[in-house]
Amino acid sequence: MPPGPSVRLALFQGRAEPLDLVANLAVLDQAAREARAAGADLLLTPELFATGYAPSLIRDSVSTAAAADLDRDLARIAARHDIALVYSAPGPGPADDRRITSTLVDRAGRVVARYAKSHLFGAEERASFRPGTAPPPVVDFLGLKIALLICYDVEFPEVVRDAAVHGAGLVLVPTALSRGYENVSRVLVPARALENSVTLAYANHVGIEAGLDLAGASVIVGPDGTIVADAGRTTGLSYATVTAPGTDVDYLADRRPELYRSWTDAAHDRSGRPD
Amino acid sequence: MPPGPSVRLALFQGRAEPLDLVANLAVLDQAAREARAAGADLLLTPELFATGYAPSLIRDSVSTAAAADLDRDLARIAARHDIALVYSAPGPGPADDRRITSTLVDRAGRVVARYAKSHLFGAEERASFRPGTAPPPVVDFLGLKIALLICYDVEFPEVVRDAAVHGAGLVLVPTALSRGYENVSRVLVPARALENSVTLAYANHVGIEAGLDLAGASVIVGPDGTIVADAGRTTGLSYATVTAPGTDVDYLADRRPELYRSWTDAAHDRSGRPD
Repeated sequence: MPPGPSVRLALFQGRAEPLDLVANLAVLDQAAREARAAGADLLLTPELFATGYAPSLIRDSVSTAAAADLDRDLARIAARHDIALVYSAPGPGPADDRRITSTLVDRAGRVVARYAKSHLFGAEERASFRPGTAPPPVVDFLGLKIALLICYDVEFPEVVRDAAVHGAGLVLVPTALSRGYENVSRVLVPARALENSVTLAYANHVGIEAGLDLAGASVIVGPDGTIVADAGRTTGLSYATVTAPGTDVDYLADRRPELYRSWTDAAHDRSGRPD
Repeated sequence: MPPGPSVRLALFQGRAEPLDLVANLAVLDQAAREARAAGADLLLTPELFATGYAPSLIRDSVSTAAAADLDRDLARIAARHDIALVYSAPGPGPADDRRITSTLVDRAGRVVARYAKSHLFGAEERASFRPGTAPPPVVDFLGLKIALLICYDVEFPEVVRDAAVHGAGLVLVPTALSRGYENVSRVLVPARALENSVTLAYANHVGIEAGLDLAGASVIVGPDGTIVADAGRTTGLSYATVTAPGTDVDYLADRRPELYRSWTDAAHDRSGRPD
């Protein structure tokens, strides 16, 4: 049997400067250059990195035209360095009708898939963006089935399960996680990988942006739940080689969706009284 | 405000002798005595401990009458030592129509709730038992809302979510986990606690029973995903004090069940093509 596809994944962790789009794009450009030079096929970057993670500042100060320019500039970074890229940005559309999006572009800068965050976190995000309603996309790319999620989405087992049931083998998650919540990286993200037999990469900011102390702790986790890369509090690139995973315990086969549905729909006796 | 209820939980980890019911009941009796002497209100014990974890031996050798006697003997252990007990046993019923059950009895030995394992693990279990179909019970007991699950059930986020949505604050899980699968204790169980804001106790065997090397690694995990007790490879009792948890991130409020249902029911475009 020929070997399956193998993708060299790079993950960037760093601090963005709120609303300094030029500076942040330069940081991403340099990350793409380095990742490509290191042999990476695909670079994952944090949530809203090009704008900085600052929802209300983005709502108040990033125009519709500026958001559209961002998408164009980020696609050009991919094409310039001949590397596929996952980036997160606000838009499209006017400030009162925006989503937080994640976009996968190929090495020519063409859009392969885009996803809008369906679980907004906290009051500021909810006041600044609208939540997406579409399920995570699952696309054939580089020989793998790749799904896109954003930040808080991945903390809900229902969302990653949906992607896995639709075939995802690699789940890519830009995020903005605050200090004090490192258990998301070290507990929830490894569980999502293990319980679905997927590889999962979770790319965070590190340092203070607009008063918020972001945790770092970006991780790449294998389908057995093992953390294969942990960026800690560092700035820069982490790497992993991703292949289509085999399964040991086949959770997707062993789950009982019809039972769960019946538990949800029916008025079950939950007293546990023996018959 | 008066302090909320506080329950002192004991968890027993040990090795059972397959089919030596007398010896195993003596071990559980001693564990109940020690746990009560240490001030515990409730003792959690491993899956199928009184029989040993040996599905096909149980099917072939434990009669309907012997299984019924077991339930009576286990209830008497609780009453003798004045401590509530969660135990797991085969039955009720004849060998070709048995479930793997978990039973909560109060300090007088009266049955409070019983649950039948809904996710059987592996070929031997499936050849030896029938799977339950009822959802996990959630019962008011000792001032908490207590849910019962068994072993492989807890590895499915859907099952613990069901219990949490129905109010569970403490989830008690007898288990029989093999060596090599310690990520269930150290990754999946902490994630179940954190993603549902529940305390979760997971009581395993340790050592070889009927040729199977059982992992130990029993854990008690707090609602923030922190492992507060880990029995490692030891034999004996672990303790934790359980209170009704407060929530930091309110996952149950922030989940979007109507959206998940729509993703399941509808034929969604998952191509991620931008509009």
